[in-house]
Order: sequence, then structure tokens, then C-alpha cells
Amino acid sequence: MNENKAELYEDERLDDLHRSGYMLIQNPKRFCFGMDAVLLTGFARIYEGDRVLDLGTGTGVIPILLAAKTKAEHFTALEIQEESISMARRSVIYNGLTEKIDVVQGDIKNMDSLFKAGSFDAVTVNPPYMTGGGGILNDTSPKAIARHEILCTVEDIIKGAARVLKFKGRFFMVHRPHRLTDILYYLRVYKLEPKAIQFVQPYKDKEPNMVLIEAIKGGGPMVKVKEPLIIYNKDGSYTEELIKIYYE
Amino acid sequence: MNENKAELYEDERLDDLHRSGYMLIQNPKRFCFGMDAVLLTGFARIYEGDRVLDLGTGTGVIPILLAAKTKAEHFTALEIQEESISMARRSVIYNGLTEKIDVVQGDIKNMDSLFKAGSFDAVTVNPPYMTGGGGILNDTSPKAIARHEILCTVEDIIKGAARVLKFKGRFFMVHRPHRLTDILYYLRVYKLEPKAIQFVQPYKDKEPNMVLIEAIKGGGPMVKVKEPLIIYNKDGSYTEELIKIYYE
Repeated sequence: MNENKAELYEDERLDDLHRSGYMLIQNPKRFCFGMDAVLLTGFARIYEGDRVLDLGTGTGVIPILLAAKTKAEHFTALEIQEESISMARRSVIYNGLTEKIDVVQGDIKNMDSLFKAGSFDAVTVNPPYMTGGGGILNDTSPKAIARHEILCTVEDIIKGAARVLKFKGRFFMVHRPHRLTDILYYLRVYKLEPKAIQFVQPYKDKEPNMVLIEAIKGGGPMVKVKEPLIIYNKDGSYTEELIKIYYE
Repeated sequence: MNENKAELYEDERLDDLHRSGYMLIQNPKRFCFGMDAVLLTGFARIYEGDRVLDLGTGTGVIPILLAAKTKAEHFTALEIQEESISMARRSVIYNGLTEKIDVVQGDIKNMDSLFKAGSFDAVTVNPPYMTGGGGILNDTSPKAIARHEILCTVEDIIKGAARVLKFKGRFFMVHRPHRLTDILYYLRVYKLEPKAIQFVQPYKDKEPNMVLIEAIKGGGPMVKVKEPLIIYNKDGSYTEELIKIYYE
């Protein structure tokens, strides 16, 4: 693997993921992955032999990072947008991961026709938030990402994930805290029972701006709210726990 | 008001609430109020002229504290257990609050027959947790407080509160974090939309052991997760914010 082999189109760049030497093709004019994606790969419990589905994979950062961090057998990366799929596929080739990661084009709303019921051990998802950006929506203009569509999307994601997960399969999502009711409500409705919640706070005394959620298909009704994950120390440096998630 | 006027039965004692000189009759062999009740009175937004209902009031600590801390017009304190009602009524008399607080005997499951729909501006509730204690259940033995009954109870509370609250009325609950899914799910089902959530952590780096929730009847779907409320400083002393809730 070296930079000469990566096929880069206009405005694209090749970023170092600091994991197993893997690189990621991104287009900063469209969307670059954020801390939320990295935190999700630290939060998700992925075991040896797992078959994993990443919904709205974008440039494929989550399956590529998880391929480096876990012993999962295989990843399927579902994405609807042409340009993201193109970048994700070229990154998979560049990193020599074609046997490990399949990038599939499709709509989360049509999961029934894409995958067999009960075919995955785990599902990960870092969906678009209200402020938009690359992801599962076609139109990236803020206007197109209306609240109504976002509301549909949380249900669509959970409904789709519930269908394709095995019994006792694990669902891992990162989202914004203000959507917590929607998320927990639909998880309960579709029988993906929330089992762990971790809020992410920029500082110890600030309100959270992200939330990590684990749910189990057919799980029992109790949920563990973990100690918050703090991003910055008082002096603005990264906390030890954040550095661990990025580099260990 | 002085201690001579309080009618105390066997094993009962008179405790200082450190608010407006109010005292509370409690029986330590049955149940004494905890920090959760006090935190709820700090979290609840109660305005001048409000008519407030406290569900499962026990010894009446929440309405008595709120009578001291707010300008609410009137409190109704609903309780099912004879002994608790007796203590609550004697405390109300002792504190000269008979015009302000009515202690009503009844079952949360029969709220329909007790109160008119839409008759309260706010509802507060500090329900019994899994580990039991005085509250809305008749039998206080841990065995009686089976998980199944607890699950019914959260729904009963929310269903009853939704009925007696006015449109845009406020619902305030303190509970354990592991019940978060049940609580948010039933709030959504009964159209009491969660608007604010605050977790309470013993220390900054520990997981929360209480959660405060505000919901609005007919409110919109976004919820604010506040910065956590921390009980102890590193050295084991109470934090400033906690002291404020107790004494300011």
C-alpha cells in the first residue's frame, strides 16, 4: 500500500487513519468523518467471527477502522450516495480489504430486499444529524435535511437494523443527545432493547453533545448509563480516555 | 410551631427540613426521605399560582419543601398507605399548611376517579425503586416489589399524570438511570414529551445513580440532556451545586 496506488479524483485527499497503516479517501468539499465515528468504533463491542453491517457508511471509515481494531470476519457497508460509495470502494481496494469489506449501494428503507433477516451479528450506524453532511440522504443542502425526514430516518434505521440482526445481535449508534427520546422509543418499539448508554461531554462540567447507544435484539428491559466520556481536560488537551480510543 | 404541638406516634421523629422552619414527621423503621426527593424539588420548575400534584407523596416531603421554595398556589399529595398519610397530615398541620396542602388517600391506578382531567399545572413524583421502601406500594417487603409490578407502576404513574395535567403542563420525576428506556418510552406513548434530563453522579468520573426528568404534555420532540449534577467533590465534601439545592 502506498499513496501512488490510490486513485484520487478532484478535491479528494488521502488521510491517515493511524490504524494498521490504513488510509481513507475523503473529499473535504463534501464531508469528512468526525470524532463521532471514531468514538463509535471504540464503543462498539465487535467479537471474533462477527458479521457486521454499517449503515450509511459514507466513505467507509467505520468498517475500515473496525477492520483494524477487531477480529470481525466480515463487514458490509451500506451507502446510498454514488460519490461516497466510489470513495469507500477505492479506500477498501487501497487498503487491501476487498475480502473483508463489501460496499453495497442501497437505501436503508429497502433493507428488506437487500439483506436476509437475521443475517448480522452487529449493526453500527453514525447517521446524519440535523445539521446535515454526507450520509444517507441524497441532497446534502441543509434545507433538504428537514426535521421531518430526520425523524423518519431514525425509525427507518432502527426498523431496518432490527430486521437484519440475529436474535441477541448488537446495535451500536452514535447520535445527538436531543434525539434520545426518539431513539429509545423506536428501539423499544422494534424490540432492540437499549442496554448501554454513554454520553460524551466536551468538558466535565458541560452538557453532552453526543451519545453512544448499545441495544440488543430481544434483550431485557434494563439499561446501564455509563460514566460520561470526557473529550477535553480543563486545559484544552485531550483526556487520556479519548487518546486511548484514537490510538490504542 | 414548636415540637410540643407535633403529635408523634411510636418510633416516629420530627426532622428539620431547613426551609421556612418546616419540620417533617418520619418513622425511620418504615422509610425516611432521601436525597432524590430533595433533588426533585430543586429540579422541578414550579411557578406562582401553580396547582401541583405529588404522586406517592409518602410523608409529604416534596409538597412541604415545594411550599417553602415556590409560590405555587396549592398542592395535592396523593398517597395509598395509611401510616404515611397519617404522618403527612400531621406534618401539614404542624407546619400550618392545611390551606396549602391536601393529603388525599388513593391509588395512582384510580386517578380517573380521584381528579378531573387537565386539573394540574405540574405533577411531581419520586416513585419507589426496585429496592423498595415507602411509597405507592402496599407491601414494603422486597419480595412484593417484583420487577413486574415496578414495570406496571412506571406506566401507571405516567398514564395517570398525563390525564390530570393541563395541556403544556409539566411532569417532573426522579428515578434510577437503568429505567430510562421505560420512562422515555411511556412518556412518549402518553404524550408527555421529555424536555429535560439531568443525570446525578456521585462523583465526576462515576456513572449516574439517579436521573431527573422533565416532560411537557403535548410538547415537541426534542430533549435537552443537561450537564450532570455531581454530589461529591473529590475529597468527599458536598459540591457547591448540591449545597445550593439543599439550602438556597
